[in-house]
Formats: sequence, C-alpha cells, structure tokens
Amino acid sequence: MTVLEQMGERAKKASRVLAVAGEKKDKALKAIADALREESGAIKAANAVDIENGRNSGLSESLIDRLLLTDARIEGMASGCEQVAALPDPIGETLSGRILENGLEVRKVRVPMGVIGIIFEARPNVTADAAALCLKAGSAVILRGGKEAINSNKCIASVMRKAVKSAGLPEDAIQLVEDTSRQSSVEMMGLSDYLDVLIPRGGAGLIKAVVENSKVPVIETGVGNCHVYVDESARLDMAADIIFNAKTSRPSVCNAIETVLVHRGIAEKALPVIKSRLDECGVEIHGCEKTAEILGSGVIPATEDDWYREYLDLKLAVRVVDSLDEAMEHIAKYSSGHSECIVTENYENSRIFTSGVDSAAVYVNASTRFTDGGEFGLGAEIGISTQKLHARGPMGLNELTSMKFIINGNGQIR
Amino acid sequence: MTVLEQMGERAKKASRVLAVAGEKKDKALKAIADALREESGAIKAANAVDIENGRNSGLSESLIDRLLLTDARIEGMASGCEQVAALPDPIGETLSGRILENGLEVRKVRVPMGVIGIIFEARPNVTADAAALCLKAGSAVILRGGKEAINSNKCIASVMRKAVKSAGLPEDAIQLVEDTSRQSSVEMMGLSDYLDVLIPRGGAGLIKAVVENSKVPVIETGVGNCHVYVDESARLDMAADIIFNAKTSRPSVCNAIETVLVHRGIAEKALPVIKSRLDECGVEIHGCEKTAEILGSGVIPATEDDWYREYLDLKLAVRVVDSLDEAMEHIAKYSSGHSECIVTENYENSRIFTSGVDSAAVYVNASTRFTDGGEFGLGAEIGISTQKLHARGPMGLNELTSMKFIINGNGQIR
Repeated sequence: MTVLEQMGERAKKASRVLAVAGEKKDKALKAIADALREESGAIKAANAVDIENGRNSGLSESLIDRLLLTDARIEGMASGCEQVAALPDPIGETLSGRILENGLEVRKVRVPMGVIGIIFEARPNVTADAAALCLKAGSAVILRGGKEAINSNKCIASVMRKAVKSAGLPEDAIQLVEDTSRQSSVEMMGLSDYLDVLIPRGGAGLIKAVVENSKVPVIETGVGNCHVYVDESARLDMAADIIFNAKTSRPSVCNAIETVLVHRGIAEKALPVIKSRLDECGVEIHGCEKTAEILGSGVIPATEDDWYREYLDLKLAVRVVDSLDEAMEHIAKYSSGHSECIVTENYENSRIFTSGVDSAAVYVNASTRFTDGGEFGLGAEIGISTQKLHARGPMGLNELTSMKFIINGNGQIR
Repeated sequence: MTVLEQMGERAKKASRVLAVAGEKKDKALKAIADALREESGAIKAANAVDIENGRNSGLSESLIDRLLLTDARIEGMASGCEQVAALPDPIGETLSGRILENGLEVRKVRVPMGVIGIIFEARPNVTADAAALCLKAGSAVILRGGKEAINSNKCIASVMRKAVKSAGLPEDAIQLVEDTSRQSSVEMMGLSDYLDVLIPRGGAGLIKAVVENSKVPVIETGVGNCHVYVDESARLDMAADIIFNAKTSRPSVCNAIETVLVHRGIAEKALPVIKSRLDECGVEIHGCEKTAEILGSGVIPATEDDWYREYLDLKLAVRVVDSLDEAMEHIAKYSSGHSECIVTENYENSRIFTSGVDSAAVYVNASTRFTDGGEFGLGAEIGISTQKLHARGPMGLNELTSMKFIINGNGQIR
C-alpha cells in the first residue's frame, strides 16, 4: 500500500465515525478555533520558513502575500471555524419521503459524502477553512496543498488534528499529504477506492489538470469568464456602475467580469460613459472594431483570444452586438458558465436572458460580484462550481453532502 | 472537426432550443410514440439484420434475447414515451429562493443538463427509453450503442428524429453515433467541450472503463453487490422470504443480492431454513467455514473473491458473522454501495444499520429488489447511481437536470 492509500484507508475509517458524530463535530470545530489561536506563534514561525523559502526562490510579491499568515489571518481562520460550528448540521435532513402502496416507508435523507479530497495552491488558510467545512459536513478530508505553503500547512494540520482528537473524534478526520511533488497530486486523482469526490481549488491550470485526469468524481470550481450585456433599453448610469463595480472592485476574483457586450443601438451613447468610469481605475480596453470606431484611440484591437480570456486584471474586452440574441450567442460560445448579467429596462428581454443564458448565476441589473456563498446566505463557501453535475454556483455545506434512501418495511418482497 | 465534435456542436445548439421548449417536448414524445408504432415493420426488419449478424458471429442466446425487438417490446418503447410525456415537466421548478437584505431576489431554479451522452450495450430499446427521458428533461442526447444493435439503433434513432422534427423541435435533440468502434467510445469520453454528463449503461467492464477514462463528468450506474444481513433477532420466515425473493426473483439485475450475512447466534437455526428455500431454485451456496460446518456438504468454500463478486446468477455467498458491527464492516469493505438490508426485530439495531451503512438504499425488513425508479415512484428511471455525487440510487427525470441561480436586482453593486 502506498502512503496515500494508507491515508485513504484511515480517512474511510474516520469517515464512518464522523457520519454519526452529531454535535461532537461542533465541539471539535470550537476546539480547533481555540487551538489555532493558542498556537498562532508556532503557526507564524512555520509560515516564516515558507515566506523565506518563497523569497529565496523568487516568488512574486502577490504570491508572497497569499502565502503570508498574519495574526489577523489566523484569527480569521479561527473565527471561521466558530462560524461553521454555528451553522445547522446538514446531516440527517429528510429531503423527501412517502409511504408506498405496499406499506414501505421510503425516505431520502442527507448523508455525508464520505472522504473528500482537496487539491489547492498557495493559500495556507485554505487548510483550515476547507477542513472545517468538510468536518461539519461529516466527511473526512485529505488535503494536498502547494509546496510553497508546506510548512504552514503541516503546522496548521497538526494543530487541527490534535484539537479534533481532544474533542473525542478521530484525528484522521483531517489529513495532509506531506509529499508535494506532482506525483502525489496525480496519485490522488487515481484514489477512487477511497475518495468520493475531489475538489481542485486554484488557478485554471490546476483545475484543468484535475478535471482531465481524475478518476475520482470532480467538482470543477472557480474559472470565471463573466459578462455584462448592456441592452438597448439599459439605464446608462446603472450600466456604468455595474460594469465599474464588477470589473474593478476586485479584478483577481472569479466573479469579476471580463467582457462587456453592448447593443448597437445604445453603443454610441453608452461606451463613452462606461469608458470614462473605467478610466478612473486605468482599465485597459480590448475592443471590437465598432468599439474602437466609437471610442477612438486607446482601444486595443480585440482578437478571438480576448473573448476567451479570464484576465483577472484591470483589462476588459468590449464588443458591440446587433441584438440580444447575438449577445446570448456570444455568451454561449465564450463563457465559462460562471456569472452573467443583463442591464435592461425591458421586461421581456430580462426574461429571455435569464431563461436562455446557461450559466451558474444569471443577473438582471446587478453586479456579478454577488456570486458568493456568503452573499447568497449559504453561511460558508467551499468554492463556486462551474459544472452542472451535483452543484452549480456557490457551494456551501449542503453541496458537500450526498444522500441515501432508507426504506423501512415489515417483510415486503417484490 | 471530427464527426463527434460536429455532433456535439449540433447537440449544443439543439439543447438551447430544448431548454425553453416547454410542452412542445410532450408533443414530440407523443409523435415519437406514434412513429415507433407506425414504423414497427421497418424497425423489426432492421433488427432482423442485427439478429442474423449476431447469430453468425456466435452471440449467446441470452444476448440474442436482449437484442431482439418484438411487437411487444416496440409497443413497450412507444408506451414508455407516452408515460414520460405524461410526467410533470421538471424544468423551471423553483428549488429555493429568498430576498437578500440588499433587495436582490435570488432564486435557485431547475434547468436542463444541456447535452447528455449515453454509452450503452446490447439492448436497442435503450435508444428510445433514454432518448425520451433526456428529451423530457430538456437536454439533447448523443447515444452510442453497441455494434451488435447498430442497425436497430439507426432505424429507431431515425424514426425518433423525424418525429421530433415533425413536432417543431430540432431533430438534433437525438443523435446516434454510427461508428461503433472502440475509438468512438474513447472519443466521447473526451468530448468535455460538448457533453455535460456521460452515463454508461451496461456491464461492469463498460462502466469501469468510462469512470476511469472519461474527462466528461460521469454518473456511475448499476453495479450491485447487495447484501442481506440476518440479525440475531430476525424472524426466520421473513428472512427466508426476503432472501429468496432478493436472490431468485431476477438474479441478473443489479438490485438482486449476492451475499447473505448471518449472525452467529441464529446461524444454526437460520441457515438450514434459508438453504431449503434457496434449494427450490437450485441456488449454489459459496459459504464461509462456519456456514459449511452448519450446512454440511453442498456448500462450495467461499474465497475472498466471492465477497466481491456480483454473480448475477443463481449463486449466493454466505458468511456467519459475530455481530452487527462485523456485518457492517463486511458491507463497508465489499459492497458496491447499491442496496443492503437488515432483517431484524430489534429496534436499536435497525437504527444502527440504517444510519451506519453507506449505500444508496438501506432496507429494514424488505427485499432489495425494490431499489427501482418505478417502485420508488419516480415515474421513470435512467439507471441506478452507485456514486455519491449528484445522484444516488434510482435516477428519474430530476436527476437528469441541473440548476442555476437567477438574481433580479435594480442596480445593486457590491
């Protein structure tokens, strides 16, 4: 047995205890919160090693910032655990039920997923955040973080495991893969005897690799090529506000927009208004020919590639379209299926857009930045699914669970 | 573009029409039913070619039987389409909704999956059954059947496509892959730009190949290594009835049982009663040492391999266990996670078993043969999922759908 298979076996065993652990899970989460605070010195010391290694190997300042654990970030991890503890337990909920004519009582109930694998990149706080959610959802978790954060992750995982044990639950509820070579990641994707689901959290490259190679069922998260379509009837101030907010409030996140589509009938009026708002933040515009014609110089000619791009930066692709239909065709072709918005005052167009656009979140007259578990009231979020199977959009605790049928009879045969 | 990519593109286009097709879908299903009846002569003629080819290539009689389309089976396909048409439309259901503090109205609504791929084996009636369910669920389908049934499948698909078109919906709602080489199956597993989900229907080998190799999200169906555990407190007559029914009523299906576990405290009384019932059908018993000791000759010694086997035949593995815990350990280790049953008169043990056993359907005092979409009242069934992601147990129309968030605002930004 490989190290990972052994971890898988231990996780499966722990998962059977977690499945019926009830309020002990909350006790464990509170113990984790306390332990993270108590051990913040040790965590920061481990993190300092990662930071130094990162600087020595020439990591960019933005990556160093993702890696860094401050007192505030450790407190965020701890209070996050407490918030998760305070959420209602998803396990055991009766989802539906009926008595069949033959007297069988059939109930569909929410149960844990079992063992969840998470492959993630630089942010060590994911270790605590993801483990807390999996624990509350009644599943064991095997975490495989990036090599840049390995010392921080080891320390955090060790602190959490001890706390889980102190609360009377198996420490193998939370396990960290210490081998951060590519091999361990590949092996995790093949661990279908032990993992019930694998969730990649990180950049597009990581997600694509996991989706394409995993034998374990995957939930694809987080790639967001999001659009705002400015309809002919749009209020210009509202359109400009929404575009400004969705592009500039946090360009590096997946619910930020990457392309604006503008109806030809309003383009001459709308584009200068939109551009002057975006100029406040120095947003670079990659526009179609018509856009360049209207806005003049300062527009970079957009190529086919621009429509596919997730810039995650102060860059925006802009295209003038002939109709609502053409806008929807564009979205169907280029979108990653995350979040799209129509700005319109036309009731029928709002209906056509919301029913016809096939993305996780479809907005009328609001910023795509709201696509978020916290904003949607899920209480917590493990990621945003851009696939259609199992979960779509922000995933909270319920999306980390499965279901089963329980059938009570008194001797029925078929 | 390959032939399959072209099919994928046409399917995607058709799926956008289907997503908002409403009651036109029912009109199309009724047209399909009529057309299948009208063209039953042509379908039988095409089927006769498959049957002759099958005989010439030495297919077993049981495979020939699966392949055969009679008037009754064609009528079954037609009336199946009518039954699906009569089911409520799953699309558009509001699953949940709320108004956030900022005034945003957030609704989670049921939407079609998009494009569904189905890879199946010998039974040509799957072509009609699966296509009807996908159509009602608002998705386009790409069907890839086995080479043995290719002439039947081509004829059925052609009849269905014409009927769909006559009802005003795109004929590409239903497409059949005519290339039945291994290559086409492999290519389908890589068609992630077009397929939203891939469902294999067939034997364990096909399912394993698809699960391991597909880049498209898969729903794993149908492998059933099911168990009955006879608790110390079980009523012997009930235990024998349930075991007899679950093993012999249709041994070739996935919800038939393969292993019986018997508590040591009741084994000496129970095993002879169970065996004498099973002897009526000539069931071959592969037993543990203790079983052989109690039942004497006529028991084939069970090997480790027997506990994993899905016999799909009049064979049964039997093991005496020391406790409920040991029975549950056995199930956790060897079961495929389909259906398990405890026969008991002990209330607490029924609770421990139903909460602790992690399978799609967990029974108290009833035959596992009830794990079926029709029996559970789902109205129709595309298969029985043995995975935990997205769907588990019998899958009806709802399990062939996805969801999205629709958010209505009036200018909200974050």
